Amino acid sequence: MDYDAFFEQRLRALKAEGRYRVFAELERRAGSFPGALSHDGGDAPRPITVWCSNDYLGMGQHPAVIEAMQQAVARYGAGAGGTRNISGTHHLHVLLERELAELHGKEGALLFTSGYVSNWASLGTLASQLPDCVVLSDEKNHASMIEGIRHSRAEKQVFRHNDPEDLDRRLAALAPERPKLVAFESVYSMDGDVAPIGEICDVADRHGAMTYLDEVHAVGLYGPRGGGIAEREGLMDRLTVIEGTLAKAFGVMGGYIAGSAALVDFVRSYSSGFIFTTSLAPVLAAGALASVRHLKTSDAERRQHQANAAELKRRFRAAGLPMIESESHIVPLLIGEARLCKAVSDALLERFAIYVQPINYPTVARGTERLRFTPSPLHGPQEMDELLFALETIWSELGLRRAA
Amino acid sequence: MDYDAFFEQRLRALKAEGRYRVFAELERRAGSFPGALSHDGGDAPRPITVWCSNDYLGMGQHPAVIEAMQQAVARYGAGAGGTRNISGTHHLHVLLERELAELHGKEGALLFTSGYVSNWASLGTLASQLPDCVVLSDEKNHASMIEGIRHSRAEKQVFRHNDPEDLDRRLAALAPERPKLVAFESVYSMDGDVAPIGEICDVADRHGAMTYLDEVHAVGLYGPRGGGIAEREGLMDRLTVIEGTLAKAFGVMGGYIAGSAALVDFVRSYSSGFIFTTSLAPVLAAGALASVRHLKTSDAERRQHQANAAELKRRFRAAGLPMIESESHIVPLLIGEARLCKAVSDALLERFAIYVQPINYPTVARGTERLRFTPSPLHGPQEMDELLFALETIWSELGLRRAA
Ligand SMILES: Cc1ncc(COP(=O)(O)O)c(C=O)c1O
Ligand SMILES: Cc1ncc(COP(=O)(O)O)c(C=O)c1O
Repeated sequence: MDYDAFFEQRLRALKAEGRYRVFAELERRAGSFPGALSHDGGDAPRPITVWCSNDYLGMGQHPAVIEAMQQAVARYGAGAGGTRNISGTHHLHVLLERELAELHGKEGALLFTSGYVSNWASLGTLASQLPDCVVLSDEKNHASMIEGIRHSRAEKQVFRHNDPEDLDRRLAALAPERPKLVAFESVYSMDGDVAPIGEICDVADRHGAMTYLDEVHAVGLYGPRGGGIAEREGLMDRLTVIEGTLAKAFGVMGGYIAGSAALVDFVRSYSSGFIFTTSLAPVLAAGALASVRHLKTSDAERRQHQANAAELKRRFRAAGLPMIESESHIVPLLIGEARLCKAVSDALLERFAIYVQPINYPTVARGTERLRFTPSPLHGPQEMDELLFALETIWSELGLRRAA
Repeated sequence: MDYDAFFEQRLRALKAEGRYRVFAELERRAGSFPGALSHDGGDAPRPITVWCSNDYLGMGQHPAVIEAMQQAVARYGAGAGGTRNISGTHHLHVLLERELAELHGKEGALLFTSGYVSNWASLGTLASQLPDCVVLSDEKNHASMIEGIRHSRAEKQVFRHNDPEDLDRRLAALAPERPKLVAFESVYSMDGDVAPIGEICDVADRHGAMTYLDEVHAVGLYGPRGGGIAEREGLMDRLTVIEGTLAKAFGVMGGYIAGSAALVDFVRSYSSGFIFTTSLAPVLAAGALASVRHLKTSDAERRQHQANAAELKRRFRAAGLPMIESESHIVPLLIGEARLCKAVSDALLERFAIYVQPINYPTVARGTERLRFTPSPLHGPQEMDELLFALETIWSELGLRRAA
């Protein structure tokens, strides 16, 4: 077998479909966000405005975060030097786990190297270790949850997106004594819609199912202290597990779960993806700790974030752009075709120095290819004017569809 | 079902077996390695000597690494702000991938958030995507490889540890046209033995199989430029994939694969664990870049490392301690029972301020529980004298088994 020929053939297939990914090579600069430099031109790096970052609040350049990381590097050095069990538990890991448990009103929390790993490892461990477990998974769940469930080899049932009734029907059909795990997200990152958490918890409780909520796109952003949508709605105690990332609103890197002491200790003790890997670098734990602490007490970033998201939506609506109406800070414009989506993105970057990545299958369903805008508190009126002008120009030139 | 009761029962089982993990809470300090502070006492943190770190060369406190990370935090901020595809490709990722490809003499390299994820995601993707692929896996392979192969659901055959003949027999029995992937490690981290890479490649070539080599415990440490055992033996071009970590000898965090341009682009394009996660924080990429570059030109750390490992082995042998003879820098003492192993480790820490974590099942087979020492270039004669004195004392007091 000619392996490289096989790989090349599969890559050609992606290219033919217009969904071969070309990464934009950027240089983020602390203090300039949402400004960055693009290294794609070949010549000197070119200043651009980023409109698709998941550093939602700009915490990645917050002075308290940067200061904490500088100090941590100077004091503790670069890496953790081992797995959590073998010399790699740093004092900062313990402090950060305590801080996150407290944020979500849970007895314990557990750090992972990423949000992806926290989902994959926790769901994989729970669903494989609970005897004869069934996982009920929202049909729009993130890849990391899907892969964790797949890994467990537990029975999986996919319920209709954000549909407690479909969930109820499915749970009712299962033997009462079987362990059951309902896995879903709060803010769905591609559409920006929000789960009916309370209703899902009601249904789960009725059938004795555990609830596992991915708040990756909500922690830091919602709730009076940044505990996520569940905090905003006073529902944190209804959830068995709350999962989050340190890499989006908190601006750093890493992931975690929060739950009961027994559950957290169980995952800590049985999860391959937690045990057999070098722990989070202390510099990341330090930055995350500073960020979580800051956002527990400061609401200014969250308020400006919501205000800017509302303003961008208002302007998209006023301009008749085909926005997917969202209930959150995520503002998608529907294009509906991979090549066209890329053409708009390319034009924005080349002619207007505006960067927003096209989102294609498999991240979203075919036919729903889109540009996904993530206005931050730092995208001011000038950036919005520039963006609207650029979109208006391209929409007219390419004769793109307007909203109804 | 009472979920917490189930978790607690499973935790009690671990405790009853003496293999419930209690993490040592440490504070590494740049400039003091292998010294650190222990936070377990309750009172003031206590200075101890770490003998089980995988920061093998002390690069985690190297001035060039720390300086690069300080600068990166100041310039680029905390996190990458997105997945590689969606605003998260930083110029430093591109530079580091180039540096790693060059280190291993390959056309390309691909970064992951950890060595664990690089194995899990790459093996999972290759073995699931190659039609009807069979994976031949060394029986001592690391958990991250095992889980990646499991995830792929490809047929797996486990071959006897470091046994090219067993591998040959198994490959010969497979249909010639089937895709085949041989997965193994260079330095096995718990025994310190080294794979016969050349012979395994000969066998693989004869049967048209790809070779995937985990050099996690060898990169930075072996070969004239730190390319690993395959570099030392002039075999890098024989391997389809070389996988490594940035978290052990390089002292930072992150993982990677290196291989042909087509293979790397294929994994980049099809691997869920690469695609759907925030990319490595720029500060880590900066530190790793400095570390890899330093170790490409400086051999001093590697020479002192080998000298200290040889000296520790010599002293263990002279003292009649039951060392597992290793061909590498890893120096295990066999204890053979979980509770005893923990008792020795506890005594070392409490009475002698020496930290070496007990290694139990499932990391090693039952009956082979051990203490695993990792002498670095920075463990000097004083630290060795202290360690030998402590071990002699405990061995006599507890009447532990001596070497034959
Ligand atoms: C819903 C969801 N969960 C988990 C993740 C993974 O988090 P991380 O980027 O920290 O790996 C992501 C995105 O990356 C996500 O969108
Ligand atoms: C052989 C082997 N491969 C991979 C890994 C994972 O690397 P990382 O710590 O970077 O996740 C480890 C240990 O952690 C290992 O021992």
